[in-house]
Amino acid sequence: MQGVEKNMMQQTPFDETRSMDRSRICRIETRRYRIPLPVVLSDSTHGEMRDFGLVMAEVHSDDGDRGLGYTYSVGDIGTGAIASMIADDLARVLIDADPLATEGNWHKMWWRVHFVGRGGIASFAIAALDIALWDLKGRRAGLPLWQLMGGVDHRVRAYAGGIDLDFTIDALLEQAQGFKQAGFRAIKMKVGRERIAEDVERAMAMRECLGPDFPLMADANMRWSVDQAIRAARRLAPADLHWLEEPVIPDDIDGHGRVAREGGIAIASGENLHSLHEFEYLIRSGGVDFPEPDAATLGGITPWMKVAHLAQSNSLPVTSHGVHDIHVHLLAAVSNASFLEVHGFGLERFICEPLTIRDGFALAPSRPGHGIRFDLDALEAHRVG
Amino acid sequence: MQGVEKNMMQQTPFDETRSMDRSRICRIETRRYRIPLPVVLSDSTHGEMRDFGLVMAEVHSDDGDRGLGYTYSVGDIGTGAIASMIADDLARVLIDADPLATEGNWHKMWWRVHFVGRGGIASFAIAALDIALWDLKGRRAGLPLWQLMGGVDHRVRAYAGGIDLDFTIDALLEQAQGFKQAGFRAIKMKVGRERIAEDVERAMAMRECLGPDFPLMADANMRWSVDQAIRAARRLAPADLHWLEEPVIPDDIDGHGRVAREGGIAIASGENLHSLHEFEYLIRSGGVDFPEPDAATLGGITPWMKVAHLAQSNSLPVTSHGVHDIHVHLLAAVSNASFLEVHGFGLERFICEPLTIRDGFALAPSRPGHGIRFDLDALEAHRVG
Repeated sequence: MQGVEKNMMQQTPFDETRSMDRSRICRIETRRYRIPLPVVLSDSTHGEMRDFGLVMAEVHSDDGDRGLGYTYSVGDIGTGAIASMIADDLARVLIDADPLATEGNWHKMWWRVHFVGRGGIASFAIAALDIALWDLKGRRAGLPLWQLMGGVDHRVRAYAGGIDLDFTIDALLEQAQGFKQAGFRAIKMKVGRERIAEDVERAMAMRECLGPDFPLMADANMRWSVDQAIRAARRLAPADLHWLEEPVIPDDIDGHGRVAREGGIAIASGENLHSLHEFEYLIRSGGVDFPEPDAATLGGITPWMKVAHLAQSNSLPVTSHGVHDIHVHLLAAVSNASFLEVHGFGLERFICEPLTIRDGFALAPSRPGHGIRFDLDALEAHRVG
Repeated sequence: MQGVEKNMMQQTPFDETRSMDRSRICRIETRRYRIPLPVVLSDSTHGEMRDFGLVMAEVHSDDGDRGLGYTYSVGDIGTGAIASMIADDLARVLIDADPLATEGNWHKMWWRVHFVGRGGIASFAIAALDIALWDLKGRRAGLPLWQLMGGVDHRVRAYAGGIDLDFTIDALLEQAQGFKQAGFRAIKMKVGRERIAEDVERAMAMRECLGPDFPLMADANMRWSVDQAIRAARRLAPADLHWLEEPVIPDDIDGHGRVAREGGIAIASGENLHSLHEFEYLIRSGGVDFPEPDAATLGGITPWMKVAHLAQSNSLPVTSHGVHDIHVHLLAAVSNASFLEVHGFGLERFICEPLTIRDGFALAPSRPGHGIRFDLDALEAHRVG
């Protein structure tokens, strides 16, 4: 596999000689965890979720810098494969590379695993390393990521992402009160129950509880066919949703377009897209109003920023999915930020300085890099690799 | 992760009760190899290749049936991740399942790893298991796969796939003579050298050597940008190529369409597509004349047959990439078969009854299932997992 760098016409050129006097990546550590959720969560695709998988990658340079990246999965699906790809396939690409060459390193990783890549596990594994490299760069520069990457506003509108499809309506409303007390001024709920009438009843109960101007989103987690999604979108109109998320499977690009046009509702989608190209297809189809790239599952911060810019070039905002401690920086860096999803997996139990929410805004920290320190002692009980 | 079966609207329904009295899958074995190539091969993307990875999955049922599946990679890229996903994520789906429920099992596997899937490693891992299940079904039925699946004609036109970008012209022509002596009446060569003029010179030398009616294909392995590919296609016109393969990256769907329309040449593509949906996008764009699904990297025989049918519904033939011992059955089963690629990785050194080539045709064997028996003793020296 010499010669993967040959395919440079698709890549941003980088000058190998110019970086000769720079530091080199000398070590990459991988850790894998299976973490119980604080409560059993549920959505229309994944059913009941009791735990999630976390894969960390720490990159060290020979002059003592380091950066930490991570990705995750539902249950522990695929985390063994992710860890294997980082250790067996991608580490070889990065060892001895310039840790600051985030763009060149990303393309070298993409092409190294291209035959088994273009999405899926590769996008998760590359993500953990790319996030680590950006963290390292921020620490080296003494800048938080949000300033390093654009520095628009450290305050980012945030919503609480409920994972609550099987909650009773009472539990749903109680959860909403808790979210408000925690400082949220926007909430997302799950839809996609057995009958659309149940979704409508639940969404209307939330709307009545929250009042007319409170942003309320709904997430169908790919539950519907296109015709079901259009019918659901129309019936949900009285709930005045800010967006309807993932109405159909991510592969159905034209279906997204039909739901957006015929459903009369704004569409969010993207948590299951794993490359810049997939976002391009979906945006071009007119099937998404709120692209929601997830840096941890899309290949990292490098492609996340490109999706944000692609969205902007199409006059669209960008939102996020998952790993809010990373995304608060990215949304604070760009000028087309929509809401930050504050995700319900409870990772804050293992983070030393969890995300601050105040009056509806999440505050990007001023610590260098992403500024996340995990409580490794507390995590140790959940380590599986 | 209970409830993955919920998303059945996207799936072919299967009757769980009806299979209650059937046999059950009781055991899945995985073996991983790194196998040296007989000679160093080269193409425009992977550079010099010295070995390849092979991942085998053997599925056993509780009434003594078994089936063997396999997938592969260049170098050993991703084979650890593939083996991990088979053993850690997918085996749990199949254990206790009906081994004959190929369609239902495929969808259960797809949805089990959907969050980290939709292509990439997941498509390789599912492929090995799906191929094993079809092999088991053929053995149980006492039928070779080509008859089990359609039975059109056991003779399939075949071409020799040269992996020869760095060969001298003399070596290229010598290789061609060897292919002809081995029974081939069609040959594919690599293109994508530093200068298009070199590709033209090499292709014209081959055309002169082979004569005017001998099918000659050329494979660019994603080397070019769209404008380069169009220019190359036009300059290669005097070589009268049967097709030009993978002129641009697989993600550039519209680019394929432009090359096909403006290049004036038939386009083959698909070895880097990993789902039925990706083939649908490419076929609909008009960017491919010869879709070339690879069962070992697309998720197995189940989606391969769907791509063949999708091609037929668009009045296109179907060809293949890699694992010719599997694909000879699949092309023999369908009525829109184009050429079989006889792939140059040299796996026949480890197969007890290698594929027979006669007068330009490959002959699908009459042994039940795919009829492939590996020489496990010879392989043992290359085992890595």
